[in-house]
Amino acid sequence: MQRLQEAAKKNGPLCVGLDTDASYVPEYIAKNFSSPAQAVLEYNKAIIQRVKAENCAACFKVQAAYYEAMGLAGMEAYAKTLRAVREAGFVAISDVKRGDIAASADAYARAHFTGDFETDIITVNPYMGFETLEPFINYCKSAGKGFFVLLRTSNPGAADIEQKELKQGGLVLDGVGAHLNKIKAETDALFAGQECSPVGAVVGCTHQADAAAIRAAYPDIFFLIPGYGAQGGAADICGTLLQKAGGTVNSSRGIVCAYKKDASLQEKIAASALTLDDMADSALRACLAAKTELLRFAAANGGKQ
Amino acid sequence: MQRLQEAAKKNGPLCVGLDTDASYVPEYIAKNFSSPAQAVLEYNKAIIQRVKAENCAACFKVQAAYYEAMGLAGMEAYAKTLRAVREAGFVAISDVKRGDIAASADAYARAHFTGDFETDIITVNPYMGFETLEPFINYCKSAGKGFFVLLRTSNPGAADIEQKELKQGGLVLDGVGAHLNKIKAETDALFAGQECSPVGAVVGCTHQADAAAIRAAYPDIFFLIPGYGAQGGAADICGTLLQKAGGTVNSSRGIVCAYKKDASLQEKIAASALTLDDMADSALRACLAAKTELLRFAAANGGKQ
Repeated sequence: MQRLQEAAKKNGPLCVGLDTDASYVPEYIAKNFSSPAQAVLEYNKAIIQRVKAENCAACFKVQAAYYEAMGLAGMEAYAKTLRAVREAGFVAISDVKRGDIAASADAYARAHFTGDFETDIITVNPYMGFETLEPFINYCKSAGKGFFVLLRTSNPGAADIEQKELKQGGLVLDGVGAHLNKIKAETDALFAGQECSPVGAVVGCTHQADAAAIRAAYPDIFFLIPGYGAQGGAADICGTLLQKAGGTVNSSRGIVCAYKKDASLQEKIAASALTLDDMADSALRACLAAKTELLRFAAANGGKQ
Repeated sequence: MQRLQEAAKKNGPLCVGLDTDASYVPEYIAKNFSSPAQAVLEYNKAIIQRVKAENCAACFKVQAAYYEAMGLAGMEAYAKTLRAVREAGFVAISDVKRGDIAASADAYARAHFTGDFETDIITVNPYMGFETLEPFINYCKSAGKGFFVLLRTSNPGAADIEQKELKQGGLVLDGVGAHLNKIKAETDALFAGQECSPVGAVVGCTHQADAAAIRAAYPDIFFLIPGYGAQGGAADICGTLLQKAGGTVNSSRGIVCAYKKDASLQEKIAASALTLDDMADSALRACLAAKTELLRFAAANGGKQ
């Protein structure tokens, strides 16, 4: 998480979301590869390579759902995508939103912090209780890993549980946040001298008032900020969330599907003459534009980045 | 879910949990296979075969965490285990506890209801809101699939979120339950003539008072009941939960690790002379004993099963 915070300062706050659904690669391109999953992998690698050349992102986030949906070949593409991200020197965030108890939680920690699916940081779902976070904390201590806990997600359904008011005062998400502050205090002691806790929070950028309140309540927690771009989140809200301890702003479809709205590619698309390189070039342009926009709003909000 | 409810009536309420960690197969047995994951798969198959011969379980539950922890080879064992369960004529429950929004939720539904990892029923985590359940409901309608929503889990951490009191009255889990009742009403209309909704709930068997209250509040919802056996849940509490619409009671380590405590195998274990067949025979004896105990308590509680 420390390394991620530094990368966000150096390269800007953009997190490139490789939520690369197989359907995003046109069939006439995909058929040149051994499988749709292989086409996805090659597209991902082409994006990683370009982003590295321009140093225009803090990290990459890989959403496990799209790879699971491609079955065994998808899991291989998932493993190789994570490896490509890490070998390029970027922090890899695996968006797995796992959450389970006891021995099963241990197994998930092993699954994503070691072996074929090894990553640097995962997202976790706290619903089953705070003890479910323990195995992940252990890997922060022993292997320098980190995790983002779901705090305030960017979808309307956040109102169903996360934002419910508690009898004891505050919202459900405040209880989660208070526990994150507690973990942060504990891990800070273990990671003395590091500015950033190994524990972060997922906070969507779809509501300005929420964003200001959450940033104020958790000044020292680094945020993973989804909802920017395709999901309708606004850069000015990101600017608010990027203050204090900062964060990384994810854009997924806005990047991997950028080619679809890219004026310079419409003729090729109409002629079914697009290439994977065209798509990756377009994704890079989207990254550069997002980086510029985010830095402008972060500066306007007096953010650290 | 209908098929599962019928199987529970016919074969008893036991759900055999194939939470088969690689470490459960002794190294001197595992080394005869191409990989630890392959040894796990063969052990699973040997258990499935025996349970089929005795018809002593309603279904199998496969906990994804243990297979993810074995990497790509583990995912292959996971896919093949699910296939073996379904080819043997049993309902397969994939314990994946997934939960995500929008296109990612769609991808998880595709991942687990089609393709390599196709299963009959999954477990889902509702934390991000009720809209996250929609893609799974669509597969209930179109492909006869089902899902269990986490309602009251069997771990102490259930107190952290699930059991928090809301300002509006009731607990967080009551809000989830109310939504399940609503989905049930909707799907009942679509599945007219079936006794059992495609939507069920996960309710642990670790607290008698909770169990009675939850069974009373959701009389028409079929339960997946974890926590029996190794997790300390008692058969009498299962008896309470098995009333009304009934349910299926999962035992995982109590079955797949039964050989460790099996008096008849201690000499072989001491001599490192155990075989996979010995282990599977012991697992079957544990299944038969669990079935007998559960049926006795279900009958004592006037349950349907």
